[in-house]
Amino acid sequence: MVDARITASVTGIRIWPSWVTQTLQSNAIATGNKVMTTNAIELRNAFGTFMTGVTVVTTKEEDGTPRGFTANSFSSVSLDPPLLLICIANTAFSADVFRNASGFAVNILAEGQIETSNLFASKSPEKFEKASWTQGPAGNPVIDDVLSWFDCTVHDVFDAGDHFILVGKVEGFATNDGGPLGYARGGYVTMDLERKVAQRPNDNRIAVSTIVECDGKVFLTPGKEAGTLKLPRRVLEKGEATLPALEGILHAHGLNANVGFLYSVFDDESGKPQEVVYRTTTNDAVCSNGQFFDLESLDMSVLETDTLKRILDRFRVEHQNQIFGLYVGPAAGGNVHPVSG
Amino acid sequence: MVDARITASVTGIRIWPSWVTQTLQSNAIATGNKVMTTNAIELRNAFGTFMTGVTVVTTKEEDGTPRGFTANSFSSVSLDPPLLLICIANTAFSADVFRNASGFAVNILAEGQIETSNLFASKSPEKFEKASWTQGPAGNPVIDDVLSWFDCTVHDVFDAGDHFILVGKVEGFATNDGGPLGYARGGYVTMDLERKVAQRPNDNRIAVSTIVECDGKVFLTPGKEAGTLKLPRRVLEKGEATLPALEGILHAHGLNANVGFLYSVFDDESGKPQEVVYRTTTNDAVCSNGQFFDLESLDMSVLETDTLKRILDRFRVEHQNQIFGLYVGPAAGGNVHPVSG
Repeated sequence: MVDARITASVTGIRIWPSWVTQTLQSNAIATGNKVMTTNAIELRNAFGTFMTGVTVVTTKEEDGTPRGFTANSFSSVSLDPPLLLICIANTAFSADVFRNASGFAVNILAEGQIETSNLFASKSPEKFEKASWTQGPAGNPVIDDVLSWFDCTVHDVFDAGDHFILVGKVEGFATNDGGPLGYARGGYVTMDLERKVAQRPNDNRIAVSTIVECDGKVFLTPGKEAGTLKLPRRVLEKGEATLPALEGILHAHGLNANVGFLYSVFDDESGKPQEVVYRTTTNDAVCSNGQFFDLESLDMSVLETDTLKRILDRFRVEHQNQIFGLYVGPAAGGNVHPVSG
Repeated sequence: MVDARITASVTGIRIWPSWVTQTLQSNAIATGNKVMTTNAIELRNAFGTFMTGVTVVTTKEEDGTPRGFTANSFSSVSLDPPLLLICIANTAFSADVFRNASGFAVNILAEGQIETSNLFASKSPEKFEKASWTQGPAGNPVIDDVLSWFDCTVHDVFDAGDHFILVGKVEGFATNDGGPLGYARGGYVTMDLERKVAQRPNDNRIAVSTIVECDGKVFLTPGKEAGTLKLPRRVLEKGEATLPALEGILHAHGLNANVGFLYSVFDDESGKPQEVVYRTTTNDAVCSNGQFFDLESLDMSVLETDTLKRILDRFRVEHQNQIFGLYVGPAAGGNVHPVSG
């Protein structure tokens, strides 16, 4: 199973230097929206509602050593001159290298490049051995098969709180066809996988379930054996659509929530249906329902299957950081396999 | 039909001050990707491959008049102090107001708020009469029912080419459940609508088609009547999945392309199937195929239906700006209705 820190740093560590809870200045008022929050983690989560792509930002040290990391704090800036920006945490491992670099490249990842995202979000010393890349026109590493890349000279550096804003002047770029890898609410978004799951061939057996989270708790319902607990789940009829079925299950449990993005797709055991797990966030009002359990204090042995234990153990760790991976499993084996293999 | 300029300015006008083609400095090399391009429009399109959310940025003039526009050049920046940024074109209509403002708010739009996006991307003088909003804790307009909002004081302003970077210090914020409205390759992305189309009830009749574009040309195939042309299209069997069917049609035409995001969903006429139109971009290699037509020079009267003429006329205008809307029609009527109604 992938190291939680790896996935966590996709947008986490790079953007947020600590998980410390702090109080913001807040002469806040309540509006038609949820009541104001004053917590830095809540702020991070609110920032995370802005959907983004995923980039790998690269540069070279003076001796030619390539450096790079995964980031999503990118914005295009100007057309004349051609400028873009990326925000880098002052505490990031490679902050000094980038701050003093004469140039850098931004690689926008394609839908199928979750593995590349995880690699460059990790602390692996072999990132550039494991990835395929070439040197761009301004001398910085350009990753193969990305959706677009921009090789830049440094145009400006601005300090901004615990980060600095690196403004690059585009010296050369290229773009490819294909769909973008997305990121929202701390998890990957890939339209392609959503479509594949939604439009699977009718002869596939499939079971849909969802983690319904609410204020750090997860909804569980009695399993087949007395004393066991499981996620809301159902094996679909042939050709039955996944999401309406799942919404029906939630409704039957009195949960009024929109099903969120995919969380896991895998085959549990040969002969059993393919498991498709979504992640759903609901509002705090329903948490008082006795069927919501705090994973930090839950005895995991009451869970109905070992697979479910693994899923919720991963979820528990990821929930602490509010950075969620997307796991897609191969046809064989009984484990939950990460995309990064 | 919605004014093309309105949709065009969703990310267009605000971010890109002109459509002028210019040559970038380019000592470019070819890589495993597409050969280097040196054209500003190509650069804009490459920037557009980075998926984003959609925001409405607001402020108040000294006399209290609310101002706001749609933008997607947002990034979270810092947690301590809590900072975010937005890039604004020097030539934007409200540039001076924002440059001299003491504060501003960023509203991150939810999936269902395409209408709000279009409203604030327009030049309507009645934006704040048509939208529901309240005053945030720092005094700036906060739009109702957004996914998140951040009300800020101005922390810093940095010049960056033809734009300036407005850095705000978050004084108060709130967040809601729900999915984000996305934007990629010049068009809206909504997972919710994709899911609804993919998982429609089996008793709906539906026809799928796609605009396949390549270097400004569109693929057309002979219609029923001699001399007419139509999009690759098929009426689905009951329960048949949309995307595999569409990929099958493209394959039969010798087109190897991945189907892109939704372009239009509407009912053409009572009793006829619902029309679902996707937009697909393919690479330049296939354009020499005689079945790709330049819409600027095509005689639109050869198109098989009036509906198709309307679709391709809209596409032609939108293609010039490379900013595409997403049109969803009501059950009645023979027109292609924009979401903004």
